[in-house]
Amino acid sequence: MTLYVINPNSSQGVTDGLKKALSPLEALGHPIRCLMLNEGPPGIETQAHIDSVIQPTLQLTRTLDDATGFVIACFSDPGVKDIRAETALPVLGIREAAISSALTLGNRFGIIAIRQGSIPRHLAAVDAMGLSDRLAADRALELGVTELADETRTLQRLLSTARHLRDEDGADVVILGCAGMAQYRARVEAATGLPTIDPTQAATAMALGRIFLRQSHKPEVNHA
Amino acid sequence: MTLYVINPNSSQGVTDGLKKALSPLEALGHPIRCLMLNEGPPGIETQAHIDSVIQPTLQLTRTLDDATGFVIACFSDPGVKDIRAETALPVLGIREAAISSALTLGNRFGIIAIRQGSIPRHLAAVDAMGLSDRLAADRALELGVTELADETRTLQRLLSTARHLRDEDGADVVILGCAGMAQYRARVEAATGLPTIDPTQAATAMALGRIFLRQSHKPEVNHA
Amino acid sequence: MTLYVINPNSSQGVTDGLKKALSPLEALGHPIRCLMLNEGPPGIETQAHIDSVIQPTLQLTRTLDDATGFVIACFSDPGVKDIRAETALPVLGIREAAISSALTLGNRFGIIAIRQGSIPRHLAAVDAMGLSDRLAADRALELGVTELADETRTLQRLLSTARHLRDEDGADVVILGCAGMAQYRARVEAATGLPTIDPTQAATAMALGRIFLRQSHKPEVNHA
Amino acid sequence: MTLYVINPNSSQGVTDGLKKALSPLEALGHPIRCLMLNEGPPGIETQAHIDSVIQPTLQLTRTLDDATGFVIACFSDPGVKDIRAETALPVLGIREAAISSALTLGNRFGIIAIRQGSIPRHLAAVDAMGLSDRLAADRALELGVTELADETRTLQRLLSTARHLRDEDGADVVILGCAGMAQYRARVEAATGLPTIDPTQAATAMALGRIFLRQSHKPEVNHA
Amino acid sequence: MTLYVINPNSSQGVTDGLKKALSPLEALGHPIRCLMLNEGPPGIETQAHIDSVIQPTLQLTRTLDDATGFVIACFSDPGVKDIRAETALPVLGIREAAISSALTLGNRFGIIAIRQGSIPRHLAAVDAMGLSDRLAADRALELGVTELADETRTLQRLLSTARHLRDEDGADVVILGCAGMAQYRARVEAATGLPTIDPTQAATAMALGRIFLRQSHKPEVNHA
Amino acid sequence: MTLYVINPNSSQGVTDGLKKALSPLEALGHPIRCLMLNEGPPGIETQAHIDSVIQPTLQLTRTLDDATGFVIACFSDPGVKDIRAETALPVLGIREAAISSALTLGNRFGIIAIRQGSIPRHLAAVDAMGLSDRLAADRALELGVTELADETRTLQRLLSTARHLRDEDGADVVILGCAGMAQYRARVEAATGLPTIDPTQAATAMALGRIFLRQSHKPEVNHA
Repeated sequence: MTLYVINPNSSQGVTDGLKKALSPLEALGHPIRCLMLNEGPPGIETQAHIDSVIQPTLQLTRTLDDATGFVIACFSDPGVKDIRAETALPVLGIREAAISSALTLGNRFGIIAIRQGSIPRHLAAVDAMGLSDRLAADRALELGVTELADETRTLQRLLSTARHLRDEDGADVVILGCAGMAQYRARVEAATGLPTIDPTQAATAMALGRIFLRQSHKPEVNHA
Repeated sequence: MTLYVINPNSSQGVTDGLKKALSPLEALGHPIRCLMLNEGPPGIETQAHIDSVIQPTLQLTRTLDDATGFVIACFSDPGVKDIRAETALPVLGIREAAISSALTLGNRFGIIAIRQGSIPRHLAAVDAMGLSDRLAADRALELGVTELADETRTLQRLLSTARHLRDEDGADVVILGCAGMAQYRARVEAATGLPTIDPTQAATAMALGRIFLRQSHKPEVNHA
Repeated sequence: MTLYVINPNSSQGVTDGLKKALSPLEALGHPIRCLMLNEGPPGIETQAHIDSVIQPTLQLTRTLDDATGFVIACFSDPGVKDIRAETALPVLGIREAAISSALTLGNRFGIIAIRQGSIPRHLAAVDAMGLSDRLAADRALELGVTELADETRTLQRLLSTARHLRDEDGADVVILGCAGMAQYRARVEAATGLPTIDPTQAATAMALGRIFLRQSHKPEVNHA
Repeated sequence: MTLYVINPNSSQGVTDGLKKALSPLEALGHPIRCLMLNEGPPGIETQAHIDSVIQPTLQLTRTLDDATGFVIACFSDPGVKDIRAETALPVLGIREAAISSALTLGNRFGIIAIRQGSIPRHLAAVDAMGLSDRLAADRALELGVTELADETRTLQRLLSTARHLRDEDGADVVILGCAGMAQYRARVEAATGLPTIDPTQAATAMALGRIFLRQSHKPEVNHA
Repeated sequence: MTLYVINPNSSQGVTDGLKKALSPLEALGHPIRCLMLNEGPPGIETQAHIDSVIQPTLQLTRTLDDATGFVIACFSDPGVKDIRAETALPVLGIREAAISSALTLGNRFGIIAIRQGSIPRHLAAVDAMGLSDRLAADRALELGVTELADETRTLQRLLSTARHLRDEDGADVVILGCAGMAQYRARVEAATGLPTIDPTQAATAMALGRIFLRQSHKPEVNHA
Repeated sequence: MTLYVINPNSSQGVTDGLKKALSPLEALGHPIRCLMLNEGPPGIETQAHIDSVIQPTLQLTRTLDDATGFVIACFSDPGVKDIRAETALPVLGIREAAISSALTLGNRFGIIAIRQGSIPRHLAAVDAMGLSDRLAADRALELGVTELADETRTLQRLLSTARHLRDEDGADVVILGCAGMAQYRARVEAATGLPTIDPTQAATAMALGRIFLRQSHKPEVNHA
């Protein structure tokens, strides 16, 4: 029996990063497997990308017969509602899991987006959770693909953005608004003193808890 | 190393119930120990009770040198802020954990209180989380001590209250608003089809995730 | 040049109903054409249905070269964000248009859903618009397919639901939460005295206004 | 039959500007007539001005026997509630219409006020619509009467304010918070890429839609 | 020097009732004088009534040279903003004062309206204060003029409405939504156990506090 | 009979300041007595401090037999809920009183905190009152103990913070977020033109009003 963490893009690098980010949770003794969506785009950057992966992600989950649960490892939570409609197994989107985790780590959470263009989607999701009053701000790294490949450059920008969220926007918790940033989490925390959430870690821990507690979004009704 | 689940009242029955409720999480391999507060009241029913246990609970946590984290198993979250101020270990109140868990299990959560008198405190806590728009309603069982001792009677009332939350108030998730109701969770789910949250289970699973992920509300700053 | 009103399901009856509902707007002199999605399901009732029509709807809009704007005539607003990402022409979802129209017709709007199962989606959408405080309630007709075919039965249920929204929930505006109910609008108004919104009419009027005003969600930047 | 757009101040220049701003809507074939309130102040800048025009505006509407609807072209919506209490014809205030239109053009709207002193009134109105979470910010041009007469100066200030709303406050839609700014709308859009709403245009388009759809805030009850 | 409590309607009975309601505050030693607006309507029941009294009320305040502050004793707060714009003396509307007082007497306040037709205005005011999440419900007595003259009948209806607010709507504070109900306050409290606010008493006490504390909404700037 | 204003810290200087701040209210003729908590910390700066004073404050109130009401003069409102649970006399916390007073003095209130570390507590309290949309910002003086002893330095920082709240954050009311700042209130008002609230003055005036009006949070039920 396996908890599947699905990266809906086709980047092997991101998928390997997920695997590494989740290694501390392997100690819990439940198999976790990270998959990627081969037909997905290399990265999920637009609304069209998001919607284009919903159907294939849904298809993929249908084939995973030994699944005990699913984590959709994209900060846009593509297909989460669809998969939930089909299964009673725990299904978690990393954005909703990160945001709900943030509520018990501080008063005001800040989100670090990769691109400015994702922010309206993030705001709509925060509004939809009824949590806009808890959001300090959502700020973008605004780094190009090549810059993102440069780890020093990316870290530098992550730190300056996290400090801005803390000092100007009043954030006391930071959410890394992307599936591929776990490797920086500890360094952001050490540099800012702010609890920093990697959304895939948060969602996977939450999914494991639900598996062990048999906590389903759709419990079976006993007509007896 | 141990995760301590502290029942701030002095009821052995409640404490034994917690132990039983958490047994599914023992499979995760991390020691969990349920303690009770000997100097606490038999039950925590008033604001005065709540505040009277804050200092002793805080004292108790100071003596638990092998702690990896703390769960305060009272739906009023007494002392959670105080303990967090003193330690960087995960500290979770069961009310805040239950409410944040509910956000990913449905749109509108309903809370089942034991007593009418607790509802204003619950509402204030939901407001303080910025989540009043997500609350369907908070309804009380209104059972006396002797009735609560009668399991059939209590279950009956739990089911009618949960159905009311579902059918009249529009709740699609139920939170058991008390530490001592875990034994009824599966039956409420089977009878209503609504995901039902035992707050101590939710908080303990969350605490374990944080321990494994080293997710602290107060990460150490690296001045190097 | 034509404003296209797209019914993402494959029901000819609904599509004919849209055409009739929009006839009062033909007087404005701008061509309006109602299309349906042949590959769509007969009705859109589940999250899976919703997501299954996004791609085909998007495809369809790409083929409509003489379009001056698009109205997506399904109360789940499928694909609206995607189409907006591709075009600067006005694109309106009927749900968002109905809800924003309701704000200037009263203080508290009530929504009449066809099925109970749609209500959580409606609530999430209202939350996402930041308007949960303006919502009086969302109530379902709970009629089966055959009953919906019975106009007398449907009207009767619509009226009792609208009266409940008015008298119990405090609604002073009613939104028909479905694309296929326009024929009942005048009768609901005459029976209840409440302004009643047919979402497709509201969205189409809004789209025409934007076409004439050249009001785009994505105006062209003049780099001159 | 005529839709009356009433400028509650006595500035001929503003009234002429309204007429020009609405010319694109004449193509819809419904007569639109812009009137001004001769007894009104030259400009409406204070709460006292606002309330002083309510009665005369109400009086004026009573004399317009061929009216099919009314638009009150002052961003403080003076008398809108009063007129609605007297007639079943569509009555729209330009502020409420602009704000409700903004909801379908972006996530966060910014308002450009002429004077700092109007901002508290705007905020109260946004709060009253339940939309404070959708407001990015409200910023004033702070230009004196003579500066406002200087079109280049005014445009320059409009653009810098719109850019500030976009870049610092996160607005993705702009509302021109005054009846007399339509002439700048296209230039603000071209310079910023943000959808920009002229409130009188928005309200008049909305009023026309209601006239054609016979959408009243007070439908007649059929006691038959 | 005198604090003026202005009843904007022309009912001597209501004015006498105000005088009586405020007698406990005479012990504070500051002169309080209740005036009525002779040109006002006998009762203020519609939006038109409300706006019709704004100018005369404003005029009246201008003539009261020995004023130390003003209370506008109508639950629609007519003219409050206008008077504040003209004077730095304390100016309080009874509705806003009652609602802000309720915040420190309980979690959820209920409002008792005289007429159903006033409720949308009350809701808009509560929304405008940003307090819709604190409102339990607003319910009307729905008594005709003659019934209101019958004290027994009115009390009976007040008690049943207050009990409904408490038991069905979850209110733990009651606001009498009218200037003329003070005589019933003690009886509503004794019958329900709920803190019950007479808005004129609340506003007058608040005004006196501001007079003694020299707390102005518009303090003088010292340019020295 | 006496209204007791309790300073839960053990600073004589602060207690003397309270006495002075309240002298304008002595004119109301009701005895007011300021006490301090000898066993309290010299200042209340942490959550642990807050909770450590709850029990002793509660004890102290039990000994004050001639009390007509209580004001808890610490901006964290420690023990307010507990004392209310024990008595029907008016009990006011200075934070809640200041915030509810601010609602009728402007649209957006700003809070001046002494220390950055208090801001999360303030935000949680504002959220709990459902008022986060009315808060402009909460900014800290960030002065050390010695600097706070320097009145010129403190005033200077208060003024710059108040101006920042006004000019950058849009506050039109200022709350001094501490019990010991009353001596600066008039100077902040004179320098900024913003209504400025000393929380102890606001709470004490409110308490006096309740004493004279016999307005209790827990009225006696008449079972006759």
